[in-house]
Amino acid sequence: MTLVTLLDYSSVLVFAVTGALVASRAQLDLVGFAFIACLTALGGGTIRDLLLDRNPIFWIANPTYLGVAGAAALVIFFTAHIFESRLRALIWLDSFALAFAVAAGVGVALGLGHSPTIVILMGMITGCMGGLMRDVVVGEVPLVLKQGELYITAAFAGAATANIAKFYLVETPFALLACAAVTWVLRAGSLTFGWHLPVYKSTPPKS
Amino acid sequence: MTLVTLLDYSSVLVFAVTGALVASRAQLDLVGFAFIACLTALGGGTIRDLLLDRNPIFWIANPTYLGVAGAAALVIFFTAHIFESRLRALIWLDSFALAFAVAAGVGVALGLGHSPTIVILMGMITGCMGGLMRDVVVGEVPLVLKQGELYITAAFAGAATANIAKFYLVETPFALLACAAVTWVLRAGSLTFGWHLPVYKSTPPKS
Amino acid sequence: MTLVTLLDYSSVLVFAVTGALVASRAQLDLVGFAFIACLTALGGGTIRDLLLDRNPIFWIANPTYLGVAGAAALVIFFTAHIFESRLRALIWLDSFALAFAVAAGVGVALGLGHSPTIVILMGMITGCMGGLMRDVVVGEVPLVLKQGELYITAAFAGAATANIAKFYLVETPFALLACAAVTWVLRAGSLTFGWHLPVYKSTPPKS
Repeated sequence: MTLVTLLDYSSVLVFAVTGALVASRAQLDLVGFAFIACLTALGGGTIRDLLLDRNPIFWIANPTYLGVAGAAALVIFFTAHIFESRLRALIWLDSFALAFAVAAGVGVALGLGHSPTIVILMGMITGCMGGLMRDVVVGEVPLVLKQGELYITAAFAGAATANIAKFYLVETPFALLACAAVTWVLRAGSLTFGWHLPVYKSTPPKS
Repeated sequence: MTLVTLLDYSSVLVFAVTGALVASRAQLDLVGFAFIACLTALGGGTIRDLLLDRNPIFWIANPTYLGVAGAAALVIFFTAHIFESRLRALIWLDSFALAFAVAAGVGVALGLGHSPTIVILMGMITGCMGGLMRDVVVGEVPLVLKQGELYITAAFAGAATANIAKFYLVETPFALLACAAVTWVLRAGSLTFGWHLPVYKSTPPKS
Repeated sequence: MTLVTLLDYSSVLVFAVTGALVASRAQLDLVGFAFIACLTALGGGTIRDLLLDRNPIFWIANPTYLGVAGAAALVIFFTAHIFESRLRALIWLDSFALAFAVAAGVGVALGLGHSPTIVILMGMITGCMGGLMRDVVVGEVPLVLKQGELYITAAFAGAATANIAKFYLVETPFALLACAAVTWVLRAGSLTFGWHLPVYKSTPPKS
């Protein structure tokens, strides 16, 4: 099993758990849990594969991904109540899933020989789109767009790190691990210490 | 005309009517009616075709589908006021469209020789995604995700029924009719008698 | 550079500015600005390319588009405060971007030899989908669906104009300019003079 496959499975598993936690907050039934889990876990990679014209889509080529997401939904359906704060669990698990998914997206695009710009974008899309669709569909404010937090920015920095590493001839697996590490550290630092970039502030309120 | 084509046209027609009813609730003009009708009626099948890499997309191959959706929008624009309750009409018509669309999606995936897992998913995607996009775009709570109702679950059960029927060597048309029947009966039973699966309930409110 | 390319770049530039203005209203950071700018500027054309199975997608074939959208986001991040009303600037810039994008979408579909129905739809999709995704993702009421305004209708009329012009053997560049002009005049007239088509009005409130 290659590192990209491992990252893909890890991101699918953890994103599926976040999807199931969101489903628990929306009080859905078991099939609803599985649906939101799959949308979250497979959404980013699906958009990546459609954009890159990879055929077949990764989870049609290998339905094990669906099994992983479904199993995660099943487990969370019966165990979500053990989390003291499901929102807190959701946000932190999401940070790991983001790091895995960005690295997986970068790995796929590097493997296809794309240019650095496209590699970075595919990392960001794979990392951010599943969670974005999860939140839009259930009508929550997207985590991806929370003010004053690093999310897309963490994905961008991680994906850029992988490109810089490749430029200095670092081998791909190390570049991908660096990508995941940078993404996660920035996201976690943002959650823990409030790290953020300057945001746009209008002097008067919304006009 | 094959049964799959007939199911496809039926789902397009009825989903287009539901889209137009949603447009009437959002007080759009005639072109807005046609837009929401097309998004609802063609959205699920379009995502299915993109995921399965069917080229061209079904409504590009055969623009008659667009004509059906547009005609439905036109008729509803002038007649929506005859419904005593447009919301009630919307929900019930949606249940028929769901049944037709799930069966159509299953039929397409079976015809391409996909595995049972992918067949079930394509049925669910064809059935649920058009209505989901309709509701997300106009900012309504998605019918698909209403608490305590069978919707995705009905689609899942219908699609699974078709697979079980195929396993016992039932011919495809009968398997598809069984799929539509199971989907509709579960959805209608949910609307009429409140049938539902256990939903996740947190003891304290959202945390 | 062909006229279609010029229209594509113009729509990407102006839509990116509108995306950045929406990002400023949501108080995002610079990477968030670039993300929403790219989603808005490239979203409609990306859906068009996926539906028409154009490979590679236009901004993968030519990443300059990404550079244009990113540069627009950067400039607006530092200058958005100069607009007296960002909402007003957003709406008017959006009207120009719509006109350029509809014409670009029509031009692409004409170039591929599609039928008038598909040409009109591709114009509408290229014009409307980017702005629709921008508004749905940040949770604003979509401009595309504002009651009593011409938006989708303007796109439809512009795209239809191009088809009528082609039918009378007008050369493509003139047909595309007529398309952009009709789209913009209708949208601008709607904003300035309140032009609109009759909308559906229910006698009692929403039922």
